Amino acid sequence: MAKELKELTTRKENYSQWYQDLVIKADLAENSAVRGCMVIKPYGYAIWENMQRALDDMFKETGHSNAYFPLLIPKSFMSREADHVEGFAKECAVVTHYRLKNAPDGSGVVVDPAAKLEEELIIRPTSETIIWHTYRNWIQSYRDLPILINQWANVMRWEMRTRLFLRTAEFLWQEGHTAHATQAEAEEETLRMLGVYARFAQDFMAMPVIRGAKTASERFAGALETYCIEAMMQDGKALQAGTSHFLGQNFGRAFDVTFIDREGKTDYAWATSWGVSTRLVGALIMAHSDDNGLVLPPRLAPIQVVIIPIYKSEEQLGQISERANAIAARLRQMGISVKYDDSDNRKPGWKFAEYELKGVPVRLAIGGRDMENGTVEVMRRDMLSKETVPQDGIELRVQKLLSDIQNNIYCKAFDFRAKRIVNVNSYDEFKAKIEEGFFVMAHWDGSAATEEQIKNDTKATIRCIPFEGDMTPGQCVLTGQPSERRVLFARSY
Amino acid sequence: MAKELKELTTRKENYSQWYQDLVIKADLAENSAVRGCMVIKPYGYAIWENMQRALDDMFKETGHSNAYFPLLIPKSFMSREADHVEGFAKECAVVTHYRLKNAPDGSGVVVDPAAKLEEELIIRPTSETIIWHTYRNWIQSYRDLPILINQWANVMRWEMRTRLFLRTAEFLWQEGHTAHATQAEAEEETLRMLGVYARFAQDFMAMPVIRGAKTASERFAGALETYCIEAMMQDGKALQAGTSHFLGQNFGRAFDVTFIDREGKTDYAWATSWGVSTRLVGALIMAHSDDNGLVLPPRLAPIQVVIIPIYKSEEQLGQISERANAIAARLRQMGISVKYDDSDNRKPGWKFAEYELKGVPVRLAIGGRDMENGTVEVMRRDMLSKETVPQDGIELRVQKLLSDIQNNIYCKAFDFRAKRIVNVNSYDEFKAKIEEGFFVMAHWDGSAATEEQIKNDTKATIRCIPFEGDMTPGQCVLTGQPSERRVLFARSY
Repeated sequence: MAKELKELTTRKENYSQWYQDLVIKADLAENSAVRGCMVIKPYGYAIWENMQRALDDMFKETGHSNAYFPLLIPKSFMSREADHVEGFAKECAVVTHYRLKNAPDGSGVVVDPAAKLEEELIIRPTSETIIWHTYRNWIQSYRDLPILINQWANVMRWEMRTRLFLRTAEFLWQEGHTAHATQAEAEEETLRMLGVYARFAQDFMAMPVIRGAKTASERFAGALETYCIEAMMQDGKALQAGTSHFLGQNFGRAFDVTFIDREGKTDYAWATSWGVSTRLVGALIMAHSDDNGLVLPPRLAPIQVVIIPIYKSEEQLGQISERANAIAARLRQMGISVKYDDSDNRKPGWKFAEYELKGVPVRLAIGGRDMENGTVEVMRRDMLSKETVPQDGIELRVQKLLSDIQNNIYCKAFDFRAKRIVNVNSYDEFKAKIEEGFFVMAHWDGSAATEEQIKNDTKATIRCIPFEGDMTPGQCVLTGQPSERRVLFARSY
Repeated sequence: MAKELKELTTRKENYSQWYQDLVIKADLAENSAVRGCMVIKPYGYAIWENMQRALDDMFKETGHSNAYFPLLIPKSFMSREADHVEGFAKECAVVTHYRLKNAPDGSGVVVDPAAKLEEELIIRPTSETIIWHTYRNWIQSYRDLPILINQWANVMRWEMRTRLFLRTAEFLWQEGHTAHATQAEAEEETLRMLGVYARFAQDFMAMPVIRGAKTASERFAGALETYCIEAMMQDGKALQAGTSHFLGQNFGRAFDVTFIDREGKTDYAWATSWGVSTRLVGALIMAHSDDNGLVLPPRLAPIQVVIIPIYKSEEQLGQISERANAIAARLRQMGISVKYDDSDNRKPGWKFAEYELKGVPVRLAIGGRDMENGTVEVMRRDMLSKETVPQDGIELRVQKLLSDIQNNIYCKAFDFRAKRIVNVNSYDEFKAKIEEGFFVMAHWDGSAATEEQIKNDTKATIRCIPFEGDMTPGQCVLTGQPSERRVLFARSY
């Protein structure tokens, strides 16, 4: 493994290969036997579980409950909402039969032609249709509203080019689906959940994000507004880390979900939906990690502290273990996750490299001299810096260190991004800066044609119309036409 | 709702209808637009979440990690293990295409015949095949073993007759899949996980269970041994609440998963798998609930305590609310989940009936006289008994009461079952007791033909060969042939 570690491609050499290497070598995920579907390995899944726990708590604090809706959606449901079908019904897995039978030639099993479904079923690419079909029976009066539901689920989109975590045919996600009595309330909910995502990205993932609205051409199929959080990866590309959609009455209308309002009038219910996925694990890796491996923010790290004994004899190991286990126990009491790795089939050097690769935020090493001096060696993964400190009071020191690391990772990402966001005023400069991997704030005339042209010329898209920032009008960087304000352009994942 | 509540069928009238009514009226789940698939509503899902949390903690305490494997399985994988394909490949959802296109006549979308998969994909009915295909690359040496992995996932089996929670085409479950270097270790794991299930059923679900081995004809397809826990429902029928399978080297062989052992010899890896599902929610309902609604054990109840104000004026409500919120806050500090229902659109009587229906273990009511006297009315759901007690010290009283209720529900189920288990020695008595809804302990000659004959005659099956109990030999209740020991017969879900 120490040998393999050296084989990690550097970011400078090939960022994309570095990412791929890291996902595999850090045991996060791998490709499966099914095209485009991944296996999420225990270490990768543990990161996702930590994300889930934090997000789920935030959803519940904002009044949401979890529920579960069917995996399969009748084909006809997909056609109910005109835009939605264009966006989602095309590349999807279609269930046409419900039985296999033994092949007549004994070669295995074949599809039983007699077991053909009357109507084909689609594996959900997203659940608006089946959920709004269900809400129809749940909603009669304004008293039944709001409905604030979230679902943790797998979904499937038949993507052509896939990449572990970032774009896979099957992925895990949460999808919130809420129904409201008024437009204002639905719009407020849409923004509230975008706020939850932004807080999660910043406070847990240590990843600064830019909030904003998508342009019409980048909206969710069926939405009136799509809001997003966009993060910068270390190659300067943008990654859309979460979206929240104001769906207006489109799904209420498509599935005939009406209610009697306070005044006794009938109206269609107002909808929102919002989601984040296992893609966030990819974002987390690409935002912080380095050429030695993962760098994980302590609040999401499956193992926050690893303790490694350095010993010359069984007797010495016994003494060190006693001390190490006592430290581990006290750290665990403080809610810190600790692994004491006293496995005897690997050398300390190998273990050091392994836990660096795995991004464990803090490493404690205790050797013979430390036992004599009452000290411990502390290494912080984010800086790769070491110091020797007293064992006395180590728990509080580690607690503070974890908090420092969380902050430092955030600040590092923030500073990196700050140096890579630039206002540009000419198309030549625009093209140059995009090529260099910048987030470019530029004026845009608001037309889809211009957006398309810029994309064709530069591979950059409008990531969002940011909520904050420079609101001064100007002239479109491509056409010179009037522009209300600068928008964010970048290449993206 | 108070009116609807009265419409709950009684258990005596029609047990099956009572169950169905209760699932619907208590807002646990409903049928969906997709045949055999259910919608799990927030209150039902909250019970499942509590089950998940408790089980997940127990899995982790026993050294397991979670991971995630693909939803879809190549058809050919299903044929690799001869028994497995017979058991699972037949009634399953088959994905044959990966694209829809607009219908030429504009009527919606149709399957694109050009997008036919080379090999069909099956929606997992269980994941042994895809997981053992994956393990092949993870296992080379005994040092890579054991692999102790669990997956929380949805699975699908095309069941013909479905019932909410008890038997649905799609259901949620966890499936553990472990790989070991020795037979002994795999067998130990199989029993360890059965023990975890039994403890969970007893300590959390307050549901006594009988552990035992399935007969050959009831084994999991591909297993050498299937162990199970069987619980008695209130109609005397058995419900299989969890299974743990010793798979021997069947999947190791089928997927060519070999490893080098300590002695340098190559061997196939040994396998176990074990699972429980959303069926447990059905078991929980049927084990404890009554004609007034759900009876939930406090350790799994989404709301453990509800507080209801009884007031004549806004001013009085204000005073009661202040007191109630203080009590709620202290209960929450103790880790107790509390709902204070001061909604103004329902009368207290309606609320009382509603929370009885929902099975909230403890209800506190505070009215004007209680405010004068410093008292509170406490109702326990399991006994439907009320008493008025001082507000002073109410938190500790409630904490103790929740623990009493948990125990009482268990004891009630235990006593109920004790009166319904009987040893029988003649086939006439056997038939009579099965008809009366008993668990019957009877001698069996060990042959599949006898088992089949008894099933055809009485609809009773061998639920298990219990680990504990009377080990005296005897004569088969049907054939008179020698029998090693009594086994457990019952009708079942």
